Amino acid sequence: MRILGIDPGLAIVGWGVVESVGGRFYPVACGAVTTPAHTPVEDRLKTIYDDVTKLMDKYQPDALAIEELFFNNNRTTGITVAEARGIVLLCAAEHHLPVGEYTPMQVKQAVVGYGLAEKKQVIAMVTSLLKLPSPPKPDDTADALAIALCHAQNLGSARYRFETKGR
Amino acid sequence: MRILGIDPGLAIVGWGVVESVGGRFYPVACGAVTTPAHTPVEDRLKTIYDDVTKLMDKYQPDALAIEELFFNNNRTTGITVAEARGIVLLCAAEHHLPVGEYTPMQVKQAVVGYGLAEKKQVIAMVTSLLKLPSPPKPDDTADALAIALCHAQNLGSARYRFETKGR
Repeated sequence: MRILGIDPGLAIVGWGVVESVGGRFYPVACGAVTTPAHTPVEDRLKTIYDDVTKLMDKYQPDALAIEELFFNNNRTTGITVAEARGIVLLCAAEHHLPVGEYTPMQVKQAVVGYGLAEKKQVIAMVTSLLKLPSPPKPDDTADALAIALCHAQNLGSARYRFETKGR
Repeated sequence: MRILGIDPGLAIVGWGVVESVGGRFYPVACGAVTTPAHTPVEDRLKTIYDDVTKLMDKYQPDALAIEELFFNNNRTTGITVAEARGIVLLCAAEHHLPVGEYTPMQVKQAVVGYGLAEKKQVIAMVTSLLKLPSPPKPDDTADALAIALCHAQNLGSARYRFETKGR
């Protein structure tokens, strides 16, 4: 099972692909799509669309994992994040990928075991769980891997529950 | 000059095409893209993408006019509206359409002459300015035509200023 995790944004879209095999998780690839400031929003959204489409074509994930959005006080940023998130969801629909959505607290709970964990703890655990040589950069990429891991764990435990029940 | 006005939303995307010729405005077509409730958001966004792409292919507008988003207290609705708006902006970029963005107050000011006008006044003025046989339905379609008219007026007055200056 191969999961593409995405942390959307207009300036930076973090992404990470994780392979889940028998309860173990392996990193496949990760990175970030960046779009230039001071260019029209619609052109930046098109860059995100084109690049995420290429990622899905290249890595052929079985599912997309993405964070649920909650707006904080920075509402202007929230709007462009939601616009970018819409583009990523469109790419998922075009590739017939099921979408797993998680709150930031669920991601932290899954990866660190504590829903109120700090960002650096999340990054450390992502680095450790995937046996990466160094913490993924930028933070958006680490967040994307964390979301992919969260979805992988969630699907794995669902399967485990199913297998246990089937005995 | 042909302008496509769009009022985005996840359930209903109102649209209207207005032709602006020598300071007069003519209706070309209007309607609404609707998406079924209780289906995955990503599938609904794909419907919007497919249908807005078809609209742009069919009516060949010279520009897109769309409202700027401001989040009110209903934040969950705001997120899906922004996601849908992102899809519409992507379609504009793919069709190389320049985008005009206006606040609700600017639209009301342009169409009714009063920035705090009520929705029914906007609908009445859209119906009158475009000599429509009856008010456009749903309201999202009337709003889309109002945004298109606002952009047409704005571009027209910009040209007028330019021509005056050129004398």
